[in-house]
Amino acid sequence: MMFRNTITLALGLVATFAAGNVINEPPPVYQKANTARWMVNSSTWGVISTISTRKGMEGSPFGNPNSIADVGGIPYFFVSALDQSMTDIYSDSRVSLTLSEAQGVSENAAACTISYPNGAGDPESPVCSRLVISGTFVNISGTDEEATASKALFAKHPAMSAWPTDHDWFVGKISIVDIWLIDIYGGASIIAAEDYYAIKL
Amino acid sequence: MMFRNTITLALGLVATFAAGNVINEPPPVYQKANTARWMVNSSTWGVISTISTRKGMEGSPFGNPNSIADVGGIPYFFVSALDQSMTDIYSDSRVSLTLSEAQGVSENAAACTISYPNGAGDPESPVCSRLVISGTFVNISGTDEEATASKALFAKHPAMSAWPTDHDWFVGKISIVDIWLIDIYGGASIIAAEDYYAIKL
Repeated sequence: MMFRNTITLALGLVATFAAGNVINEPPPVYQKANTARWMVNSSTWGVISTISTRKGMEGSPFGNPNSIADVGGIPYFFVSALDQSMTDIYSDSRVSLTLSEAQGVSENAAACTISYPNGAGDPESPVCSRLVISGTFVNISGTDEEATASKALFAKHPAMSAWPTDHDWFVGKISIVDIWLIDIYGGASIIAAEDYYAIKL
Repeated sequence: MMFRNTITLALGLVATFAAGNVINEPPPVYQKANTARWMVNSSTWGVISTISTRKGMEGSPFGNPNSIADVGGIPYFFVSALDQSMTDIYSDSRVSLTLSEAQGVSENAAACTISYPNGAGDPESPVCSRLVISGTFVNISGTDEEATASKALFAKHPAMSAWPTDHDWFVGKISIVDIWLIDIYGGASIIAAEDYYAIKL
């Protein structure tokens, strides 16, 4: 078993490296705010959910993967106004940002993996952490925080600097109103924004 | 460059293996229905987005990671009635299921990876395929398809058979009304359900 676990852990580390994510240990499960902040900082992308404005789909939920960067706990985005999610947000700015440890942000991602150990892990297991940050999506073009956010986005996502200039790109953020986390058995924890923002990495 | 690409591809293969996913080549980008079906079949999980019923969050979008299994193109779920998403669905059954190739379902996931090559890949790149299946979430307990769906879920997710029995688990599916795919530059493709269901794996 030790051998098997070591091999699986080694593969997990390579997987994390290959995915271009930060490799680090997750905080202890009782440190909820720390775990939430760690997930936002370690993830390269998440799913933005909006209320759809598509013809025939109005009012339905719509989840769309987007890249992220973290500055001080705030999730920032470099997005195109042509994107469906941005069209939705123009009508209703309420969003959620969903992150899963199954995206491979840590060694502990083995808990999310169906082959580890003996099939005990799963993306739906409560010990495979999942985080839902809810709030309103805000275009921060021309604000004081735009330069810092852009720097963090372009550092984390080198491809962005080469994206075509004719797609109405802008920098946005989520103004957080709710933080929902499952990282262990027993149901979700709601994390106070002040506790979350107080975390120093 | 050849050497670098080979190493990166090898790491990608290990990453895919470690994540417990199917290793296979994505279909050509012009085969949209095939690509959508391949993503559903290859992924172990996705994000279910719902319209929230949480106190103070009513009407907001809420995205939550859940494990999936594919039978004939239909995404099936083994879910707890205690889960927040299921509470939401009881009030409004409209959902989307979001999958990203950045979850590591193929060798091509290098296109999603910020280190490959020279930073050209990114989870937000259009060539890092993203799929949004919209529809209504249906509890299929007691129906003819429950046995087949359960078998597929438990085969793909061995951990599920050991989950506690007191959580009101049931088998659900998405009754598909819309399939939205980005797998290349130029905007999203809407795939007809009949084309999607016609794909044979």
